[in-house]
Amino acid sequence: MSDILNHASRAFYEHGFHGTTVRDIARRVGVTVPALYYHHENKEGILVAVLEAAIADLLPRGEAAVAEAGDDPVRQMANLVESIALHVTVRARLAALDSEYRYLSPGVRRGYAELRKRNEELMRSVIERGTEQGVFVVTDPAEATRALLGMLQAISRWYDESGPLTPAEVADRYVGLCLSALGAPTRAGRD
Amino acid sequence: MSDILNHASRAFYEHGFHGTTVRDIARRVGVTVPALYYHHENKEGILVAVLEAAIADLLPRGEAAVAEAGDDPVRQMANLVESIALHVTVRARLAALDSEYRYLSPGVRRGYAELRKRNEELMRSVIERGTEQGVFVVTDPAEATRALLGMLQAISRWYDESGPLTPAEVADRYVGLCLSALGAPTRAGRD
Repeated sequence: MSDILNHASRAFYEHGFHGTTVRDIARRVGVTVPALYYHHENKEGILVAVLEAAIADLLPRGEAAVAEAGDDPVRQMANLVESIALHVTVRARLAALDSEYRYLSPGVRRGYAELRKRNEELMRSVIERGTEQGVFVVTDPAEATRALLGMLQAISRWYDESGPLTPAEVADRYVGLCLSALGAPTRAGRD
Repeated sequence: MSDILNHASRAFYEHGFHGTTVRDIARRVGVTVPALYYHHENKEGILVAVLEAAIADLLPRGEAAVAEAGDDPVRQMANLVESIALHVTVRARLAALDSEYRYLSPGVRRGYAELRKRNEELMRSVIERGTEQGVFVVTDPAEATRALLGMLQAISRWYDESGPLTPAEVADRYVGLCLSALGAPTRAGRD
């Protein structure tokens, strides 16, 4: 992530989208406002770039995690949940900014909405596969996907890197919770 | 909830805490700024009052839902999840404001933090009881509580009252998901 986006993500986290000015961000980066406008059209453009950078960090890891798990949906789900839980703990501040999404105007949010949807579809396809094979017991895979992604997303709101749990420990617990929620054996098929 | 808090919650939802001014709120309510200051010390005081009103709506319903369920932890959990899911759908805008919590200064957030904690303890006590009785399979009840409350809280971010699902339908699905996540039989003990 660029220096601008890094500083902008801190500013947005601390003061929210509406509480942050382009001038604040420029000051943090140590550049002039016109220099900032050279890279990004406006404040909304900066927030979108931050959100897209966050999901661009998440999505390929999730895709790789699923691909590395072979054919077993339980293992695919375990790997995917682990990769998401690591993202929302290691990059908690960045992940928490997803809640600023609602302030984006419809035209601007489109690119980010696409990436978010790809992430949802990745999990939904795993849940659907597991449900077809009878290893998951799920009535509505789309709803279960939304619920589990919501649960994982919420970690970013309380996770504290100075707290007692490491990202790996959080990930391990959420893998268990998510597999249970899908009605799967929680320890089967884990690496 | 007072007229002031009702209008304030809309303003905070639309523009965030930092993007809302006391003048905006006064204009929406149709009163002068001094009149608003007569009721609330400042903008932070208004946000706290909104957040406290939201949880004051949630907590007694949850306590009653648990009390009405008799001795069975599965039924207690089902009732509690149902009452929370109804709250975050019927009052989605209000429930979504919980994410503005991080902007409160430590002294101001104390009262709200207390109420939030009571809500957590209510769920944790049910999960602990069910775990002791062997109907739930949970390693860490505090962690499971946080995860399930996070999952329920996240509903307020996507729920759309004009969408296909009624609050009761959402509640029903989340009762199933939460009981599964706790390793309980999902349909046993439901009313």
